[in-house]
Amino acid sequence: MAESGRLPQARALLQQCLHARLQVRPAEGDAAAHWVEVMSAPQLRLSCGAQGRFLPRCLGDFCPRVQRGLVIYVCFFKGADKELLPKMVNTLLNVKLSETENGKHVSVLDLPGNILIIPQATLGGRVKGRSMQYHSNSGKEEGLELYSQFVTLCKKELAANSKCAEAGVVVEHGTYGNRQVLKLDTNGPYTHLIEF
Amino acid sequence: MAESGRLPQARALLQQCLHARLQVRPAEGDAAAHWVEVMSAPQLRLSCGAQGRFLPRCLGDFCPRVQRGLVIYVCFFKGADKELLPKMVNTLLNVKLSETENGKHVSVLDLPGNILIIPQATLGGRVKGRSMQYHSNSGKEEGLELYSQFVTLCKKELAANSKCAEAGVVVEHGTYGNRQVLKLDTNGPYTHLIEF
Repeated sequence: MAESGRLPQARALLQQCLHARLQVRPAEGDAAAHWVEVMSAPQLRLSCGAQGRFLPRCLGDFCPRVQRGLVIYVCFFKGADKELLPKMVNTLLNVKLSETENGKHVSVLDLPGNILIIPQATLGGRVKGRSMQYHSNSGKEEGLELYSQFVTLCKKELAANSKCAEAGVVVEHGTYGNRQVLKLDTNGPYTHLIEF
Repeated sequence: MAESGRLPQARALLQQCLHARLQVRPAEGDAAAHWVEVMSAPQLRLSCGAQGRFLPRCLGDFCPRVQRGLVIYVCFFKGADKELLPKMVNTLLNVKLSETENGKHVSVLDLPGNILIIPQATLGGRVKGRSMQYHSNSGKEEGLELYSQFVTLCKKELAANSKCAEAGVVVEHGTYGNRQVLKLDTNGPYTHLIEF
């Protein structure tokens, strides 16, 4: 989406998932680590029988291989403006990359699917010799502010969408500045890069 | 690495993993699907005791959190030349993105770590309205040829590296043109984009 020739303000990487688990708080002292999860539960319940007790089995090889969640890795660059965010969220949630059970591609809102947002500053790196440099990345405070507003906007979009509200899909997100300990289970990550 | 202003010939996305599993042949008739795996087995055996029987437990929360493998998603664009490949492989295998147990970053060759190469044509997509277009991607035959040579070169580099040979690390790779069914377990994907 970024016009060629000008530097992007933000970079987003999209991957489709069947199930994802992200640590949002590391273990500290006696306190266990906190995790968030997105998975294809509503669809799987329908596919494998109405009884909730079947659900755990359904996360394995017994179920239809459908793509039910979207992972958005996001990175902001220096000069990124919060006025960019509505357009960015609109594009990411409406681009037709999520596969239905019939193999058709629709938006994550139309699927409807869960969303996992991961702050990923490393996406802004540039190779310099054998190392990576991150000079183009937004500053920490500015990046946190943009990230928080991005998450809020995604949540608002989902809440305003009747299909998503009915299906009970959710937006989960990583903690800015933390290590993003991630487990991902896909039926093909179908990785896409979109710059803004 | 691609100079700004000119279109890239190839795009690579790097993620660090503790364990990855990729389907290289789907199930067909009575034949089960085939998978390849990369994981941090040698390191974990050292960390958790010499007995192989401890290994399965060690893939969970009991082990030191080290990044032991590199996932390379790769996509070639129209006009990509095979003369690009040696430089590309050299950069990807030597850039210092893999974390040691001490938290230092070294190359995957110096780690040494396993490598999983995934052909990912979707990385070449561009947003057009609500859809993605792939007009810049290399043709299928040309893409397959570049991908095959890329895999071969990575294998040669690993074989020629005494540290890698001693540690017994491997290059595994996905089947070009197939759906890349992937399970990924990370201690932070530490996602980087490098264009050539």
